[in-house]
Amino acid sequence: MNVTEPQGISGVEENLDPLFLRVCRNEAVETTPLWIMRQAGRYLPEYRRVREEHDFLTVCNTPDLATEVTLQPIRRFDLDASILFSDIMVPVIAMGADITFAPGPVLAEPIRDESAVRALGRPDAADDLGFVMETLRNLRRELPQHVTLIGFSGAPFTLAAYLVEGGASKEFASLKSLMFQEPVTFHLLMEKLALVVVDYMKAQIDAGAQAVQLFDTWAGLLSPADYREYVLPHVQRIVEQVKRPGVPFLMYGNGTGGLLELFEEAGVDIVSLDWRVDMAAARSRISPGIGVQGNLDPIALFAPPETMPLRVRNILEGAGTESPHIFNLGHGISRHTPIEGVEALVRAVHDEGRRIRREAADAIGNS
Amino acid sequence: MNVTEPQGISGVEENLDPLFLRVCRNEAVETTPLWIMRQAGRYLPEYRRVREEHDFLTVCNTPDLATEVTLQPIRRFDLDASILFSDIMVPVIAMGADITFAPGPVLAEPIRDESAVRALGRPDAADDLGFVMETLRNLRRELPQHVTLIGFSGAPFTLAAYLVEGGASKEFASLKSLMFQEPVTFHLLMEKLALVVVDYMKAQIDAGAQAVQLFDTWAGLLSPADYREYVLPHVQRIVEQVKRPGVPFLMYGNGTGGLLELFEEAGVDIVSLDWRVDMAAARSRISPGIGVQGNLDPIALFAPPETMPLRVRNILEGAGTESPHIFNLGHGISRHTPIEGVEALVRAVHDEGRRIRREAADAIGNS
Repeated sequence: MNVTEPQGISGVEENLDPLFLRVCRNEAVETTPLWIMRQAGRYLPEYRRVREEHDFLTVCNTPDLATEVTLQPIRRFDLDASILFSDIMVPVIAMGADITFAPGPVLAEPIRDESAVRALGRPDAADDLGFVMETLRNLRRELPQHVTLIGFSGAPFTLAAYLVEGGASKEFASLKSLMFQEPVTFHLLMEKLALVVVDYMKAQIDAGAQAVQLFDTWAGLLSPADYREYVLPHVQRIVEQVKRPGVPFLMYGNGTGGLLELFEEAGVDIVSLDWRVDMAAARSRISPGIGVQGNLDPIALFAPPETMPLRVRNILEGAGTESPHIFNLGHGISRHTPIEGVEALVRAVHDEGRRIRREAADAIGNS
Repeated sequence: MNVTEPQGISGVEENLDPLFLRVCRNEAVETTPLWIMRQAGRYLPEYRRVREEHDFLTVCNTPDLATEVTLQPIRRFDLDASILFSDIMVPVIAMGADITFAPGPVLAEPIRDESAVRALGRPDAADDLGFVMETLRNLRRELPQHVTLIGFSGAPFTLAAYLVEGGASKEFASLKSLMFQEPVTFHLLMEKLALVVVDYMKAQIDAGAQAVQLFDTWAGLLSPADYREYVLPHVQRIVEQVKRPGVPFLMYGNGTGGLLELFEEAGVDIVSLDWRVDMAAARSRISPGIGVQGNLDPIALFAPPETMPLRVRNILEGAGTESPHIFNLGHGISRHTPIEGVEALVRAVHDEGRRIRREAADAIGNS
């Protein structure tokens, strides 16, 4: 049975429709779904074993390996979604950029002028990035039906940040200097990246991704006014062209508590929050019906497991149940995270998610 | 004439009362005051010349050198305030921590258990940190009367971040692990730091500081709920004990757009904003009468100077003139900043600050 085309509406078959997708459609559900950013990764001993044999990019580029590591956290934990194991720089490498990982992406030659921008190619997503599509097709076969498969791409600004800086940076002065001093070249770069992102995300949906997340991890480098001028139009175009009925579009940024309204304006279905904003305050800034995702501090997984239900509950109550809420960390999980912390989190989200819905139902019953 | 005790209220003598302090008292003023975080620093060739001869800590610890570099930006630019040249780790070194600069602070032995916390001493601020007080006394003699002298201290959480991590960090997992797993030890560390901060800030005011700023640069690592539980009580105690009539208390954090209400709850007079929040949105979250400071992106000083008035004006309009607004960058100035960018900023703030007040007066006159 293909879970994107449910064959009936009887109780039994409804259960095969993933919780994640039902929440995104704002249906009444039994509990809150969760997944964890970077859930396939170094905190898992089985992932570290794969990486002893294969370097990072080989894992991304080899469908069998990428499928295997994507499935690892699903075997261990009762997660409601599975995100493709890959890296945001994968499509940029296909554009011709010479990138190595050390461990973050480093460019042999940063892209800082018009000719360097013009030299970037437009890959054929289904062909040049066919290994990603094969991984997604594998995953749709291998994943349990109740687990939603999420595809993803880096957003143009975040990709541009790496391309222009040539690697990580503290102030991103090269990126912003290009943006402020050479806006035409900057926008040309953003447009080329946006075209590739659109092709890439559409191909992922064609290959079986049931939801997509755009990672604009570095958008938080910008003031809201600069985000509106330099980034928002490109993201709006991507959302417009990629969005497909029944395939939720999620938007993530880090340090983007000042940009939530602009993320909504981009047209996404779910706005992902880092842990630096209060969930209730953030929820009240976003229109009803638009969902939120988040937002536990990743390092809270280091706290004693018995403290987890209270932390989780505060977030669940802040999000409420009127509009969609996908539980997640506010940023990728740390490689030093204890497994018990993850187990406590998964249990707490599902237990407390059930409890707040039961309490709400009882309150209505008693009134 | 001592500017903290104005001798009359005639027009002439009022002009000797610094613009910065008049704005903090929420008086009607002629324009918006500004200063720049890290305004004495590496972007100035005259600072780099001093540093060719003397290392960073020697400059901090030698009153003549610290006085000289503090005065350098005041000679070049029409700034309304001057901040003591020093480092937030200076009082922590006086507590007995073994710190070197490389260039950020690095601890020989990170402080991660109760015995290490107990070993930290409580310096006599006027004596052990007498060189700072001497610098402040020098500055009060040397500075033009219209320039307000600002003292400062690092806040306990930010100091604790360096002490526990032992240096810079990406995830601050050691710090947060101590906080979540050993809350008693964590609070003991925060209490010891808060005592020292109180002594230090009071001594600075005694030595002539006309305003003080608490730098909780790393507070943005925390969720609002964790800030409230682990940090706010300590900051409240500091503000309560340091605040003195006529001496504005400013609070700075980076990435703290989610904490603005909690900064106000701490009792400060002025909440400083980084550039990641929209000024008008931030202003609306803070009570009338409480001031705001900020919030230009430091890298906007790399933009063509002719674009500065518009950028500045957007911030001035967002802040309005009903409550105090001190113009500043949202974070310390970059060492690569072009001098022309700073000149354009200073001119734009004073010019546009005058213009919006004149326009407001004209609008009232015409209505």
